[in-house]
Amino acid sequence: MSGTTIAIDVMSGDHGPQVTVSASKHFLSRHSDVKMILVGDEQTISKELGSVAADLKSRLTVQHTTEVVAMDESPALALKKKKDSSMRVAINLVKEGRAQACVSAGNTGALMATSRFVLKTLPGIDRPAIVTALPSKRGHIHMLDLGANVDSPPELLLQFAVMASILVKTVENIPSPTVALLNIGVEDIKGNEIIKQTAELMKKSNLNYQGFVEGDSIYTGDVDVIVCDGFVGNVALKTSEGLAQLISSIMREEFQRTLLRKLSAVVAWPVVRAMKRRVDHRRYNGATFIGLNGTVVKSHGGADRLAFAHAINEAYVEANKDLPQRISEELTYWLGEKE
Amino acid sequence: MSGTTIAIDVMSGDHGPQVTVSASKHFLSRHSDVKMILVGDEQTISKELGSVAADLKSRLTVQHTTEVVAMDESPALALKKKKDSSMRVAINLVKEGRAQACVSAGNTGALMATSRFVLKTLPGIDRPAIVTALPSKRGHIHMLDLGANVDSPPELLLQFAVMASILVKTVENIPSPTVALLNIGVEDIKGNEIIKQTAELMKKSNLNYQGFVEGDSIYTGDVDVIVCDGFVGNVALKTSEGLAQLISSIMREEFQRTLLRKLSAVVAWPVVRAMKRRVDHRRYNGATFIGLNGTVVKSHGGADRLAFAHAINEAYVEANKDLPQRISEELTYWLGEKE
Repeated sequence: MSGTTIAIDVMSGDHGPQVTVSASKHFLSRHSDVKMILVGDEQTISKELGSVAADLKSRLTVQHTTEVVAMDESPALALKKKKDSSMRVAINLVKEGRAQACVSAGNTGALMATSRFVLKTLPGIDRPAIVTALPSKRGHIHMLDLGANVDSPPELLLQFAVMASILVKTVENIPSPTVALLNIGVEDIKGNEIIKQTAELMKKSNLNYQGFVEGDSIYTGDVDVIVCDGFVGNVALKTSEGLAQLISSIMREEFQRTLLRKLSAVVAWPVVRAMKRRVDHRRYNGATFIGLNGTVVKSHGGADRLAFAHAINEAYVEANKDLPQRISEELTYWLGEKE
Repeated sequence: MSGTTIAIDVMSGDHGPQVTVSASKHFLSRHSDVKMILVGDEQTISKELGSVAADLKSRLTVQHTTEVVAMDESPALALKKKKDSSMRVAINLVKEGRAQACVSAGNTGALMATSRFVLKTLPGIDRPAIVTALPSKRGHIHMLDLGANVDSPPELLLQFAVMASILVKTVENIPSPTVALLNIGVEDIKGNEIIKQTAELMKKSNLNYQGFVEGDSIYTGDVDVIVCDGFVGNVALKTSEGLAQLISSIMREEFQRTLLRKLSAVVAWPVVRAMKRRVDHRRYNGATFIGLNGTVVKSHGGADRLAFAHAINEAYVEANKDLPQRISEELTYWLGEKE
């Protein structure tokens, strides 16, 4: 089969097929080298698809499933009971080689548990991590882990750094991406034992390790990859979402306070729009479950069409470059002692 | 001695006496019940003070010191060698009862180490924590620990929650402040063992415990106190600073891109100013080292006059209500098993 095939779990997410099917159709129409398998209830999908041009039809398959994993369902139960869920079947398609990647806006815990169970981790990788790009002054950075692993030991943090380095190298053609370790100070004596030991491991590896950074460097710093434990990374990500929401709601309130301000909002609108676009979380939607024997991309549950399309694009780019294979090939070199 | 006496370490901070002396003088002129001891080089202080009105003169003392703790100095060395530093002497004044609180914009590590050594922790408190107010949709919240303690065990996190509850009760007259534990999900199964055990301890205590919150709740949530380990809290705080900087620099760039936009900036200026004021970190400057036998407030190193005055005000309010004494009196009740 030529080109890349992407399996889409269309039933999951806060908005379900209404968003996922239309985003998929749109993406397909823009990428003539892509094939897609829409996984979910056949009737619903057909209704959402509407009329499909002949060119698209030849590259589009529907895989009927009868179950859906709920957003608040226990990962263990979803894994055990929902064998015909859109999520599970989409992952199965990757396992069977019928698709090179899958995308889901479903329950993170269930998606991770099912992905690990079905696809397994790559040889040499102890646990997969969640990695995403985030906007920053320099453009963007990649950060991991964002919540898959709490209490990560130094060896695991080193693996995270290596996987993200290979991701950035593969997708962005940066030969030796710069890596930093998130800490509460930049001096060697700062942080806990795990951080200090991880720094030692990184120094000895072939990573382009730059040392410690503090939280503000996520948005204002100058490295390609920032590594941290999943608990810390998840808090940093969610805290950012909260602050962005607060600033955006204050801006709305302040612009509506008086008639004059409402008028000024019209004048300032291009600026506000340009600003929002540059830090738009939708443009950064799509977190990769890195370290698996296959490409799985998690979309934000509340993603709209634009955001979901960005998640599909992330899956497309990674599958196209066969990221899991690249990780397998390069792992030993990057982990290995500095020559 | 009637009124409250505050000792100010005027030599520390990125801007030193230029900011601290003028902020102190201004604060003193606005609070006729306050006395102040300015600690630092006599000549420099006298130069910065300029002419002082008689009313202020009677409430203002200068304590001459010969040393300054550098911003990047090792806490251990500062503690051992700099016995006549402005920082050390300001803390000594609290210990000796000549001041009820001290404020410093110095090196956080040195200030914490010296405060612990000189003042000691309150009976029943294992370690002090760093707590501050942060802006949020509902007004503000208090969060701790912000970096004094990494790898905090459940018993310590419980003490943090109790101290912050007493702080909010004392300073804001909220009889039973609501408390939440920062986690990477709100379900009981989320988080690591320490978080789960801490939740159990909190449920059994007299705290008004509300359960887990995620990072976004710092800015959009609805509790009075959010508790976390110092590593996580420091990352969340610094990440927020970075994101705020990014948004602010993008806004500046976008408003300057064209002549039309420069004009629209003039029109939108009242909105931008109102917005900035509501999330202005300077209004939230002043983190308390809570759990010590005395009140120590840490100002941001880069604080300007307005920000430093806010830190002085925090010290003033806490000293006025004798927060350390209140913590001592109420600790057992809050920690104790629910009746």
